[in-house]
Amino acid sequence: MANEKPASEKPDNTVYIGKKPTMSYVLAVATLFNSGSNHVTIKARGRSISTAVDVAEIVRNRFVQGLTVDDVKITTEVLEGEEGKTSNVSSIEIFLKK
Amino acid sequence: MANEKPASEKPDNTVYIGKKPTMSYVLAVATLFNSGSNHVTIKARGRSISTAVDVAEIVRNRFVQGLTVDDVKITTEVLEGEEGKTSNVSSIEIFLKK
Repeated sequence: MANEKPASEKPDNTVYIGKKPTMSYVLAVATLFNSGSNHVTIKARGRSISTAVDVAEIVRNRFVQGLTVDDVKITTEVLEGEEGKTSNVSSIEIFLKK
Repeated sequence: MANEKPASEKPDNTVYIGKKPTMSYVLAVATLFNSGSNHVTIKARGRSISTAVDVAEIVRNRFVQGLTVDDVKITTEVLEGEEGKTSNVSSIEIFLKK
């Protein structure tokens, strides 16, 4: 449709993985899909990357039927600390599609 | 070429991530590329998934020029324990290409 917004302007269906229990993120992602979203992105950095993969797999296998992993991107983010010191941290983005 | 072997029969350029220091896996992957491989796969399960992403990113950014992430796959493996109990563990495969 001509008036459909491009993907970048759609509401942000992104779940950031932090230090909460895995199941809270699973519920967040499942809720987004069950409330009509067809795409959800899971993002994580550093040690949370393993949890991000757990979340994607648990949602896919147990909570939402017909979900596929559309793409997985890994990158390095540069964090600037005090005194101009920088440190690198790996990050992951998992794109899930219904 | 008609006689080229399918990918599954090529020598196995796979590095499995375990509990050693990150840099030992970085060196293993970099060595494979520097000894002529054009494709290396990094595999990890569970908590080692974060390390796998670190290894891929460190090799890419600091050790081997022109390396790209060809694909990233995430899956669930079912481990069978004693008394027939099963547990699920997430796993990742990162395909690096020169």
